[in-house]
Amino acid sequence: MMDENGILFILSGPSGVGKGTVRKELFKRADDLAYSISMTTRERRAGEKDGVDYFYKTNEEFEQLIADNQLLEYAQFVNNYYGTPRKYVEDTLAAGKDVFLEIEVQGAMQVKENFPEGVFIFLFPPSLEELKTRITSRGTESQNAVLKRLKEARGEIEMMDAYDYVVVNDDVDHAVRKVQSIIQSEHCRRERIAKQYKRLLEDDEL
Amino acid sequence: MMDENGILFILSGPSGVGKGTVRKELFKRADDLAYSISMTTRERRAGEKDGVDYFYKTNEEFEQLIADNQLLEYAQFVNNYYGTPRKYVEDTLAAGKDVFLEIEVQGAMQVKENFPEGVFIFLFPPSLEELKTRITSRGTESQNAVLKRLKEARGEIEMMDAYDYVVVNDDVDHAVRKVQSIIQSEHCRRERIAKQYKRLLEDDEL
Repeated sequence: MMDENGILFILSGPSGVGKGTVRKELFKRADDLAYSISMTTRERRAGEKDGVDYFYKTNEEFEQLIADNQLLEYAQFVNNYYGTPRKYVEDTLAAGKDVFLEIEVQGAMQVKENFPEGVFIFLFPPSLEELKTRITSRGTESQNAVLKRLKEARGEIEMMDAYDYVVVNDDVDHAVRKVQSIIQSEHCRRERIAKQYKRLLEDDEL
Repeated sequence: MMDENGILFILSGPSGVGKGTVRKELFKRADDLAYSISMTTRERRAGEKDGVDYFYKTNEEFEQLIADNQLLEYAQFVNNYYGTPRKYVEDTLAAGKDVFLEIEVQGAMQVKENFPEGVFIFLFPPSLEELKTRITSRGTESQNAVLKRLKEARGEIEMMDAYDYVVVNDDVDHAVRKVQSIIQSEHCRRERIAKQYKRLLEDDEL
């Protein structure tokens, strides 16, 4: 109805909580949502496309973008940089499309600093017991590594206060529906749209 | 999952915008919502039940409740008082059930003052032209009365800033879905539920 900007939604939460599963199911149902494409310095693999799977950059290019504050967040893994390019997000929002970013808690906190107008959703485990089961059942980690990850998860949950919404992932369908409600209702928030509606009043003559 | 209080939702907007239609359709779909029952001094009609259609009070009782700040809002029509009893709303919320109140803009502003923790939804006409058509097509009012109501509607729209959400009533189904999203997402707001989730952390041992 009106030329409205898109909104950046950030889904985060402790590792093991099921962020990826919720995000995948959400994208099956929502066709008007753009997934935030990451930027990386790792080599392009066969079949991957620039601007689809990742934006591929050299080390020098990436470090220049960091220096220019052109990344909403970034991190290094195994000597490669990964990050969220500000320009792609801002251009997509300006075109009126929502952007959805699924990310670890540390990355979300960086985004919060660089893009506070985003809507931050914290995915919460049904219980810590359940989170423990999920992390343990991956079976790829030693007892010590599991304990370390659980301790981290506890710390990450403490960071909930920086978020706008908390969605419990007791069931993927429930969680996805709640995220969809958050997306729809955020578009109805008065702060976002009052100006446009008032403009309508001025244009309209009684 | 947790013992959570209900939320008071207030649907308001200019006269002629279709508040009643949206409210009725919402109640057809939502079975976990309590309709806010009004209190009145008008006489009980045949078939009406106390505590179902209205809470019936004498003039003296009603005025005592006003004096005791026991009404979230009230007004006088044709020598009778009508109002929203605070106790019914608070008891229902404490029992974990949401309460839904559909009301004129003036009444909503009184509720805002007496119960700022409510969630205020402003129903917006698709256009002023459309509102004009709706008011005129009722056919019960003189040209002058229609103009007066339109001028009032314009003033009421200016009060949008006191609301949390704006929902455009371009289509009843759309509007109801948006209101349902607002209800669901408000239950996910971190300010409301973070305490409960953190309590869960304390109870849970790793």
